[in-house]
Amino acid sequence: MALIVQKFGGSSVADPAGLRRVAKRIAQTSKAGNKVVVVVSAMGDTTDNLLDLAHNVTDNPPARELDILLTAGERISMALLAMAVNDEGVVARAFTGQQAGLHTDARYGNASITGIVPERIFRTVQDGAVAIIAGFQGVNDTNDVTTLGRGGSDTTAVAFAAALGADVCEIYTDVDGVLSADPRIVPAASQRRELSYEETLELAAHGAKVLHLRAVEFARKFNVALHVRSSFSENEGTWIVEETAKQGGYEDAVVVGVAHDRNQGKISVTGVPNLPGSAAKIFSCVAEADCNIDMIVQNTALTRVGLSNISFTVPRDQVDIAVAALRANQAEFGFEDIAVTSEIGILSIVGAGMRSHSGVSSKLFKTLGDNGVNVDMIGTSEIRISVVVDPDVLDAAARAVHTAFGLDASEEAIVYGGTGR
Amino acid sequence: MALIVQKFGGSSVADPAGLRRVAKRIAQTSKAGNKVVVVVSAMGDTTDNLLDLAHNVTDNPPARELDILLTAGERISMALLAMAVNDEGVVARAFTGQQAGLHTDARYGNASITGIVPERIFRTVQDGAVAIIAGFQGVNDTNDVTTLGRGGSDTTAVAFAAALGADVCEIYTDVDGVLSADPRIVPAASQRRELSYEETLELAAHGAKVLHLRAVEFARKFNVALHVRSSFSENEGTWIVEETAKQGGYEDAVVVGVAHDRNQGKISVTGVPNLPGSAAKIFSCVAEADCNIDMIVQNTALTRVGLSNISFTVPRDQVDIAVAALRANQAEFGFEDIAVTSEIGILSIVGAGMRSHSGVSSKLFKTLGDNGVNVDMIGTSEIRISVVVDPDVLDAAARAVHTAFGLDASEEAIVYGGTGR
Repeated sequence: MALIVQKFGGSSVADPAGLRRVAKRIAQTSKAGNKVVVVVSAMGDTTDNLLDLAHNVTDNPPARELDILLTAGERISMALLAMAVNDEGVVARAFTGQQAGLHTDARYGNASITGIVPERIFRTVQDGAVAIIAGFQGVNDTNDVTTLGRGGSDTTAVAFAAALGADVCEIYTDVDGVLSADPRIVPAASQRRELSYEETLELAAHGAKVLHLRAVEFARKFNVALHVRSSFSENEGTWIVEETAKQGGYEDAVVVGVAHDRNQGKISVTGVPNLPGSAAKIFSCVAEADCNIDMIVQNTALTRVGLSNISFTVPRDQVDIAVAALRANQAEFGFEDIAVTSEIGILSIVGAGMRSHSGVSSKLFKTLGDNGVNVDMIGTSEIRISVVVDPDVLDAAARAVHTAFGLDASEEAIVYGGTGR
Repeated sequence: MALIVQKFGGSSVADPAGLRRVAKRIAQTSKAGNKVVVVVSAMGDTTDNLLDLAHNVTDNPPARELDILLTAGERISMALLAMAVNDEGVVARAFTGQQAGLHTDARYGNASITGIVPERIFRTVQDGAVAIIAGFQGVNDTNDVTTLGRGGSDTTAVAFAAALGADVCEIYTDVDGVLSADPRIVPAASQRRELSYEETLELAAHGAKVLHLRAVEFARKFNVALHVRSSFSENEGTWIVEETAKQGGYEDAVVVGVAHDRNQGKISVTGVPNLPGSAAKIFSCVAEADCNIDMIVQNTALTRVGLSNISFTVPRDQVDIAVAALRANQAEFGFEDIAVTSEIGILSIVGAGMRSHSGVSSKLFKTLGDNGVNVDMIGTSEIRISVVVDPDVLDAAARAVHTAFGLDASEEAIVYGGTGR
């Protein structure tokens, strides 16, 4: 008898028909002899509609009240889903975050989980009932309701899977699993059958719509096996596990995914005095303005002795904030000017195999070169290479690189035959 | 500085414009130097919509989950109302029933208040902020959410007024106060300026749409002054207070209101053996079937020695239940038959002055007689006389009686001049 945590997103439970479909799957898992804990998001557009209501009432909703408002969405879906599961002949009980014992800090709108006291959930599944938990929400030390931010239902599911020692945390979605690229850009994108936590984190952090970053970090920290799969089919989806727990086989690919990101901007600070600590001052200043720097390039300004140029990328909606913070310190820092390129494209390839395989970067740059793509900046981690390119050629570059690293679906299909988890 | 509890119903906060209008009034009361505690119902049709959703998912929603579902309505309205009040420049904080400290028993759907621990609400108003409480809901000993049943927001408001020792509990509605009759039946219905708890209870129990019975009982028990008034005007409404606290004056009317009720049915049990305990058996049987008997008439069957007929009224939706319960015991009880009149009209006049004034019943029956209305059954309390009449003449009878007891608005208007609270 396994303990399974299942997480269903808002699109899976958008209407009564969806709720009943999901309920059937939950009941089936329970009837197969498993203990089942479910985490559910708000139905369809409920959260957005509640946000709209708030903004119809005031331009500045207080954070505490906004959180308690938004949690109404999951309260509705969890109660209805419990009713639907009961209707399938399996006893189910619904629990708010507070009732389920999910404790957070007091940062409304983006709270962090400080602890889980899953006693009531544990008792519920011990009694043979299904526990249905409202995702995305918790309670802080003053008994006030908090939300974990968008995507927080994934985190809720993983956190309960960790706290309960679940065998697997199933993340249900409307596709069959995690793909090697965004199929709207790369039609040949293929489904991955397994990824490591690190690969998933790198993909998610560089533009891939996979899972909420925090959820994957949580899963890695507590070694929770994730299974991303479709709520519309019985197919195996994508398993996200420790690198060492990967089954390997056909999947021992060097590169597992191609991510793209159009939501970054580039800031170039020119004429920076070439003195120790100059760069540190600039990056500290930007970091203190709460801007997240991703890639950095520093090069000596060839024409000007003693000066250098520093370029870095930040999320596009943080570009103005970062520039303003730097301008405010221009005299002190002594740089000459700031140039902004708000439209850039970033292409990333990710794969744990890079650690042990050489030739990955040369293949990447050869492919880009053969396709006439200029590389503006380069950033790397142990298992990732990212390049900044002209946004107009980003899609074509992604397709070419995807093909070059053998990720296209047709090739995968051939390899699929001999394997299977 | 007064402590004022204000209760706003769903129609007052049906949309963002309504929320803002109500928020202005709350802010105004606070800025005038009062401590303000607000109890709010769900917006407009929210509760009905949630019920519909539940019934779209299952025919038999479990009671615990239905309650937690329905409480989402007040969670939304309380959060939005707090936002709107903040927008008026007055700090407001929203609290669920659980956060506000409203404890109940575990009877889902119709829970009773077992206690209030208003510490957090007390601190909030001590800090100068407005406390906004979700009506209709509480929490039981197992930390599960319960609802108080329809009209439960009135009860919530009165309960907090009692627990906090409020100076007044204002019940806001879309009319100016309590009327002497239903204006759809009696167009000349006049606004009452004060009623005693007992008068209000009698009116509410006999068909008048005044306040939730439980709320008035609570107010009487804890001597909470109620002020029923319009959220659309500044006019004085109707005060509901102890009989001895009434200001009197023009209002020292013998009869204060005419109520009508078309939702009762009449059951006649014929040929009941005229033995001690026969009637008791019948009424115990009906009571055990959870049917509420209102009026009773017993008369000897003139043509049959040793037999009597017993007639009584119950709410129409309980008629079939009562009849089935009696039929199941027909052999034991030994009666001959049961006759049902499902369509009856009940007219009631209410007034504490009946205790000290004679001639009320003779005026009532003379008026009914002059208007050709036959009286089928009669029931009385110390301050009420009710008659069962043909439902077709109920409206005309109500108008005639209303006029006869000097309740018509035109007459009131003349008397109004010299008074005022």
